[in-house]
Amino acid sequence: MEGQVGTALPGDGRFFERSGPFPLQKLAECAGARTVGDEGTDPDTLYAGIAPLQSAGPQDVSFLDNRRYAPLLEQTRAGVVLLAPAFVDRLPKGTIGLVCQTPYLAWARVASLFHPLPAVVPGIHPTALIGVGAVIDPSAQIGPFVVIGAGASVGAGTRIDSHAVIGDGVQIGARCRIGAQACVSHALLGDRVTLLAGVRVGQEGFGFAVGPDGFETVPQLGRVILEDGVEVGANSAIDRGSSQDTVIGAGSRLDNLVQIGHNARLGRCCIVVSQAGISGSTELGDFVTVAAQAGLIGHIRIGAKARIGAQCGVMSDVDAGADVIGSPAMPFREFFRNVAVLRRLAKKAPREGGGEA
Amino acid sequence: MEGQVGTALPGDGRFFERSGPFPLQKLAECAGARTVGDEGTDPDTLYAGIAPLQSAGPQDVSFLDNRRYAPLLEQTRAGVVLLAPAFVDRLPKGTIGLVCQTPYLAWARVASLFHPLPAVVPGIHPTALIGVGAVIDPSAQIGPFVVIGAGASVGAGTRIDSHAVIGDGVQIGARCRIGAQACVSHALLGDRVTLLAGVRVGQEGFGFAVGPDGFETVPQLGRVILEDGVEVGANSAIDRGSSQDTVIGAGSRLDNLVQIGHNARLGRCCIVVSQAGISGSTELGDFVTVAAQAGLIGHIRIGAKARIGAQCGVMSDVDAGADVIGSPAMPFREFFRNVAVLRRLAKKAPREGGGEA
Amino acid sequence: MEGQVGTALPGDGRFFERSGPFPLQKLAECAGARTVGDEGTDPDTLYAGIAPLQSAGPQDVSFLDNRRYAPLLEQTRAGVVLLAPAFVDRLPKGTIGLVCQTPYLAWARVASLFHPLPAVVPGIHPTALIGVGAVIDPSAQIGPFVVIGAGASVGAGTRIDSHAVIGDGVQIGARCRIGAQACVSHALLGDRVTLLAGVRVGQEGFGFAVGPDGFETVPQLGRVILEDGVEVGANSAIDRGSSQDTVIGAGSRLDNLVQIGHNARLGRCCIVVSQAGISGSTELGDFVTVAAQAGLIGHIRIGAKARIGAQCGVMSDVDAGADVIGSPAMPFREFFRNVAVLRRLAKKAPREGGGEA
Repeated sequence: MEGQVGTALPGDGRFFERSGPFPLQKLAECAGARTVGDEGTDPDTLYAGIAPLQSAGPQDVSFLDNRRYAPLLEQTRAGVVLLAPAFVDRLPKGTIGLVCQTPYLAWARVASLFHPLPAVVPGIHPTALIGVGAVIDPSAQIGPFVVIGAGASVGAGTRIDSHAVIGDGVQIGARCRIGAQACVSHALLGDRVTLLAGVRVGQEGFGFAVGPDGFETVPQLGRVILEDGVEVGANSAIDRGSSQDTVIGAGSRLDNLVQIGHNARLGRCCIVVSQAGISGSTELGDFVTVAAQAGLIGHIRIGAKARIGAQCGVMSDVDAGADVIGSPAMPFREFFRNVAVLRRLAKKAPREGGGEA
Repeated sequence: MEGQVGTALPGDGRFFERSGPFPLQKLAECAGARTVGDEGTDPDTLYAGIAPLQSAGPQDVSFLDNRRYAPLLEQTRAGVVLLAPAFVDRLPKGTIGLVCQTPYLAWARVASLFHPLPAVVPGIHPTALIGVGAVIDPSAQIGPFVVIGAGASVGAGTRIDSHAVIGDGVQIGARCRIGAQACVSHALLGDRVTLLAGVRVGQEGFGFAVGPDGFETVPQLGRVILEDGVEVGANSAIDRGSSQDTVIGAGSRLDNLVQIGHNARLGRCCIVVSQAGISGSTELGDFVTVAAQAGLIGHIRIGAKARIGAQCGVMSDVDAGADVIGSPAMPFREFFRNVAVLRRLAKKAPREGGGEA
Repeated sequence: MEGQVGTALPGDGRFFERSGPFPLQKLAECAGARTVGDEGTDPDTLYAGIAPLQSAGPQDVSFLDNRRYAPLLEQTRAGVVLLAPAFVDRLPKGTIGLVCQTPYLAWARVASLFHPLPAVVPGIHPTALIGVGAVIDPSAQIGPFVVIGAGASVGAGTRIDSHAVIGDGVQIGARCRIGAQACVSHALLGDRVTLLAGVRVGQEGFGFAVGPDGFETVPQLGRVILEDGVEVGANSAIDRGSSQDTVIGAGSRLDNLVQIGHNARLGRCCIVVSQAGISGSTELGDFVTVAAQAGLIGHIRIGAKARIGAQCGVMSDVDAGADVIGSPAMPFREFFRNVAVLRRLAKKAPREGGGEA
């Protein structure tokens, strides 16, 4: 197997669509960039693909986004490089620069130009089961062994992959992608929502009361609302609300194995990295970032643009714009200062028992 | 999408069954409550649904469980409110009180009265595959694309949702619910066991020995026992034992994305919150609570009624009734005292380098 | 249910294959052990199964690997016990010892002798869907409702369980086991790769750029390479690379609910315990151990044979052979010393407010 590592990358034709080739003008438009170093180049020259700086050839487009990799720029053989103005004077002779303020964004767009998502192929696979009264847009693609419940709706250009299960009454907007084995129930999805494989949306939340013979379930009677453009990573779980809704704001991105408890509300463009968890009834403002493995208890509020560090344990409200880390959460600076102070104290402290050194 | 948030809640008719309306007497019986403030009300008055205090109308039943929301009680327009004796004198005129010691439990029951679980519809979907010698109770509901192994048994009133996979020889009791895409193998399930979507029960545990050419698997020859009334959240994993059984005690509730290692044994009515993990061969007494993202190493014992805090890292035995938190785990009070002491020391400490302030 | 606990263990015949019985000579060969205490025993005596020391009878084989359980050895009724030389003189009269340096490894092999994995039954289930140009070895077993994409290949003796989804072009080697409900896309798998139920391999990684109207996806154009002998636990997720590959080195073992980010590279024989997460572009050398719930940030390097403790938060490179724990990560000794020093300081510190004691 090792022999295959590093070949056919990026964009192995077995797995990815290819488009192109494209002339420089098309690339510049796509990137929203101005051209430098193309004097004397035939404007009809075509570029065939994308590649990292170190492996790109004269037909390839590459990019530089991180100062750390600037030395690679000077030695690249790439035909074209997307880069910020600060690096223009390090372009090697014979490489054209596409200069823009946000080269990573430009890269995203140019890479998508060469490797578009597979087209949605309209139609319902003959093994799929469609419930009574469900409305499937004729341009949608419904994969094998999919089950769609009664009264559900699926919008234009949406693709639902094999074995996904869509519950009764669920509404899915246009141009959504529902991954293989995903389940969606008790939910309303906007447009351009992406759920990767194994996502669980709309399961009953963790709610019970103590009765005389053990726990008794409190009915979970809310829904899940996924607004436009929400994306959710593999095997994540978003529970439906208990009496309110669980809401993920437009454009938010959740990574793999994330847990969202009942009645939680995320604002627009929040980021929740893998294995983080947000407990019930907690509210996040817009543009909040929750790093990997962080945990937020229930019934708190996180202000807009706050950043919650990795493994952070948040037990109380966080102000808008704050950066917190640690368990319990505290400002970044305070956390690292505490770490340094404890280290110094421990070095000075007498050893217990004396046998440890 | 935003326009839909907050409407049709709780109990959106697209997703939830509805029952009723019910007279006051029926509600009082269900709640085990006594009635106050109903003088002059027609006993045949019917109540149609449930709603939060702030949106409930004269036909609705609501509840108050948390002192924080008492001001909402004074302004509610609800017809009936479930509440504890302490709040009776804050009932507004025209609202009837159903007074009980455990209003949250009463609420669970009344909400279930208005919104019962969907009835189990006996029968085996024609796409389901039933193994040789499997015994399916005629009152059970087996969904589309379900696979049930040879010699398995499924009890009365149990519902198995689409794509679930039940291994050879697995025994499932009465009135269980097995969610979509769940897998169960090498396991014996009692009655009223609920597994949400994507749960994995009975996979082989993480056991291997170091051999001359790498790791060699140690056969995992135990089972999983889920006693009566156990509930397991979405995408959680419960490994089968290696030579003993992995056992989850009656009435225990596990949340989403929980990990239970091989040979672990949980007592009755334990609570394990989302993303917590219990390593192999660890034993929990009855009524232990493990909060979110906590981790317990293997081969330790947690005494009955102990409470393990969120993100706690438990490396040794915990006494019955103890409250621990932190990583490594320590008593709650000690943990928060340490946090406070370190904060004070850090404030007093000279800054390293002087450039940080 | 409780009545069934402890019976038929290990190797309940409803769930596990059985082989044998076997004579002592066969067991000794399998274990690579020398025999003691068999003077006067008929060499044709057959042994029928395996059992723990405390329940084994004269027909059973048992083992001792842990000094803690040595007292059980003295009272065992087992016919044969695998054990290290140090315990030979504690063998009870009538029990034969099979003496070897690595009794746990020997146990793995002897247990596998009595309870072999179920044989692969060649054939494609009639409900499975095989894409155009896919090549399935005739000795492979393809379960019900499996979907295999166009141009994929499946090697000799490989078993793919029900509902698994194999994407277009995916290559799966010989003698692999792909669990129920698992998804594999954009990936090349070596031989003897095991994926348990619900594993997600090859999903797009968490990559996006900030655009004027929110986040824009950066195409994820790499693959996943799982080298020979890799095993992955239930519901774990391994994202494909963005422009490089995500690589899991030969013989590595990942537990349940593990997250591996895009472009991560693990060396040979790494161990990643449940709920741990490795962020994008991080590299692990050979024989690295990452304990449960640990998290590694992106773009760092972990040297060979390093050991990352449970719940550890690793924010920077770790040297080969180092043992680290804590969040942020530090050497084991330093971490526990810090804990002890803080505890002492807190005991001495004046109480704030005075009301806490």
